[in-house]
Amino acid sequence: MRIAIDAMGGDHAPHSNVEGALRAAKEWPDTRIILVGDERQLAPLAGGAPSNVEILHASEVIGPEDEPVKAVRRKKDSSMVVAGRLVKEGGAEAMISAGNTGALMTTGLLVLGRIPGIDRPGLATMLPTLDGKGVLALDLGANMDASPEHLLQYARMGSLYRKSLEGLDSPRVGLLNVGTEAGKGNELTKEAYPLLEELPIRFVGNVEARDVMDGACDVLICDGFAGNILLKAMEGTAGAVFGALKSAFTRTAVSKLAAAVLAPGLREFKKKLDYTEHGGAPLLGVAGVCIKGHGSSDAHAIKNAVRQARLTIQSELVPRLSKEISGK
Amino acid sequence: MRIAIDAMGGDHAPHSNVEGALRAAKEWPDTRIILVGDERQLAPLAGGAPSNVEILHASEVIGPEDEPVKAVRRKKDSSMVVAGRLVKEGGAEAMISAGNTGALMTTGLLVLGRIPGIDRPGLATMLPTLDGKGVLALDLGANMDASPEHLLQYARMGSLYRKSLEGLDSPRVGLLNVGTEAGKGNELTKEAYPLLEELPIRFVGNVEARDVMDGACDVLICDGFAGNILLKAMEGTAGAVFGALKSAFTRTAVSKLAAAVLAPGLREFKKKLDYTEHGGAPLLGVAGVCIKGHGSSDAHAIKNAVRQARLTIQSELVPRLSKEISGK
Repeated sequence: MRIAIDAMGGDHAPHSNVEGALRAAKEWPDTRIILVGDERQLAPLAGGAPSNVEILHASEVIGPEDEPVKAVRRKKDSSMVVAGRLVKEGGAEAMISAGNTGALMTTGLLVLGRIPGIDRPGLATMLPTLDGKGVLALDLGANMDASPEHLLQYARMGSLYRKSLEGLDSPRVGLLNVGTEAGKGNELTKEAYPLLEELPIRFVGNVEARDVMDGACDVLICDGFAGNILLKAMEGTAGAVFGALKSAFTRTAVSKLAAAVLAPGLREFKKKLDYTEHGGAPLLGVAGVCIKGHGSSDAHAIKNAVRQARLTIQSELVPRLSKEISGK
Repeated sequence: MRIAIDAMGGDHAPHSNVEGALRAAKEWPDTRIILVGDERQLAPLAGGAPSNVEILHASEVIGPEDEPVKAVRRKKDSSMVVAGRLVKEGGAEAMISAGNTGALMTTGLLVLGRIPGIDRPGLATMLPTLDGKGVLALDLGANMDASPEHLLQYARMGSLYRKSLEGLDSPRVGLLNVGTEAGKGNELTKEAYPLLEELPIRFVGNVEARDVMDGACDVLICDGFAGNILLKAMEGTAGAVFGALKSAFTRTAVSKLAAAVLAPGLREFKKKLDYTEHGGAPLLGVAGVCIKGHGSSDAHAIKNAVRQARLTIQSELVPRLSKEISGK
């Protein structure tokens, strides 16, 4: 199988992208990695690469400040758009990018196109849970506003994703809400709730933000705005707590010693909360495999995104989604 | 000054409510505490109370499962509604309740009434920040859906609250959003942003959920749904991290010893994150002082809510809000 990596997107591009790609190529010799980007920059970094790595030149780059729709329309030779076109035209089975999120959504919509029956692709992210199993939350920011119909589509796609990739029998789908009772919420969630009950999925009702980490469901449905608030509140709080612990732990020589004893347990726990372990965020609903890496992806995260792209291709998620949603 | 406490509302009522009231009465002899609720239950608990505590009998209780509007309309002799009426009719300057949140909002709207010029009262909560100063976030759940106009009213009320109660010169008001740039967000925040810029407040722009604990602003404006997601995600994540730490710390005899060394620093930090330290959540925009205690309020939280009610009365917040918002 062939996976295109936008080598120029992300805070640590192109170095980390190339490094991650090389590691992935070594680990999975059956996979052809296509590094898309500026050949002059990429060639020296890819020196000594295994034979299953190739470079596809793209002369432009979409930056973090670029206006998404404009950038995708105008920068037709950007690494991101070229990677998308490669998937669209059958030159690769998946694309990965850690670049401009809005531009990647737009590439998904305009270059790859939607699966028939899906109005809005959703960005799905594995949020950490204490049991290590994670919860697939979507939408985490592809569309800020959602209609009840969009939430239903997210629910079906998320459910099928966890079935297909992880073999979960009957994933528990929850609706992010402010209370667990059926009547709770804003207009959107109140309208969506009874419709979710009628879907052929295992809908377990409303899930409160505080119960997400306890693993109250396998798939969590929300509009992109609320999802982004949830994700960043979890990130921010965990970061703040660990930061404060660190300063409490290094206050005195004795506390430093005590902290050293506890460090292994802490590290193990921190690893559970680490998004890079879970790979990237699939953009579900586009007609192709498209994985978004975190903007600050390091080589480890890029490699894990390749692992995830491989799994997604192998599980035949896109044709299965297409069949389930549109009946085709 | 006179403060009415709904003695029957909350998970630990009436015991904690009475205990907290007695502590407050001892600390502030100039304050008359009116315990509203079932006399037969309250009298034995209030044995030996200082002379500035009195009991006002109310025969009914609004429970956590009661439908708010129906309950407030029908249970006219419930402890919550009686406390509200007391404030409305001038028998007390403030009310405190840790009971049914929806019913307290309804009591605010239907019994106390709104300040002219305010469409929707907002529930404000002090969220913890690492510097210990906190950020006043509103709305945290009085109204699930908000219009841009409501957000503007929250901004003005929140700003005046921190000015009046804490003497902050020019509180920094931020808009909860998914990115810091001006064009980010959903329809609501995109519409509200330019309007907030025109208000006579210090609007510092968008604030991401992950920057809240770092103290990015003094007042955080959001609709009730997003605010509730933020609050509960922060609570849930902090709780999960502390829980996991605890289990990591008690794994072996040596780690227990190490944890004991670190305990004081941890306790200090946990205290910073403790909502009970910050008192209750004021319902801003109603024509009277109305403080909501957390449902699980203990005596310490109730006493801190009394402290907050005293400060709110002394700062003349309600007449100042009324003057600023309606010009009257």
